[in-house]
Amino acid sequence: MEEFVKQTFLYDFYGELLTKRQRQVYESVVLEDYSLSEVAQELGISRQGVFDMIKRCNKTLEEYEKKLHLVEKFLHIRRKVHQIHLLTEKYGAEDIAKISNEILEEL
Amino acid sequence: MEEFVKQTFLYDFYGELLTKRQRQVYESVVLEDYSLSEVAQELGISRQGVFDMIKRCNKTLEEYEKKLHLVEKFLHIRRKVHQIHLLTEKYGAEDIAKISNEILEEL
Repeated sequence: MEEFVKQTFLYDFYGELLTKRQRQVYESVVLEDYSLSEVAQELGISRQGVFDMIKRCNKTLEEYEKKLHLVEKFLHIRRKVHQIHLLTEKYGAEDIAKISNEILEEL
Repeated sequence: MEEFVKQTFLYDFYGELLTKRQRQVYESVVLEDYSLSEVAQELGISRQGVFDMIKRCNKTLEEYEKKLHLVEKFLHIRRKVHQIHLLTEKYGAEDIAKISNEILEEL
């Protein structure tokens, strides 16, 4: 998986376990693609400080995943629901297609 | 939801975030249904001590759910996959039934 996609998943699942300040920095740099310098300037800390925060956030998020494996579990289920979605076509099963689509949007 | 079922789900999802000792006590009392006195005797602590540990574990697990809502999310998806499973009958869609069954076993 692409590093960015992985980070986004981990943040989606465990982001609420970071501090408010960590979330703020993480969202700016990783999700909204602001540069380290821009975020550093806004927060009045060094560029290195921002870099270290992101690194620590990634480590924390990865540690949660290492313990709980919930992203892995979700992605596995997502693949299976996607298989179901593809199979509905041959049956013209629109009701199943609709539900599987809802699940994919939520996962 | 029954209190016991809820506790089991919370433990399934977030149990790994408890300490080893907490998990040991929680599993004995909540999942394996040993009495507080039995566990207290085995660990050489008071019955009240075991009771307090369980209470603290529940609080910790509930705090994780309050932040992450992953049990809620999983149960919601589980219900939808169950709907899919029921619908497969009218199409004779055995392949979809099989996949949805696998998901239900994993969730």
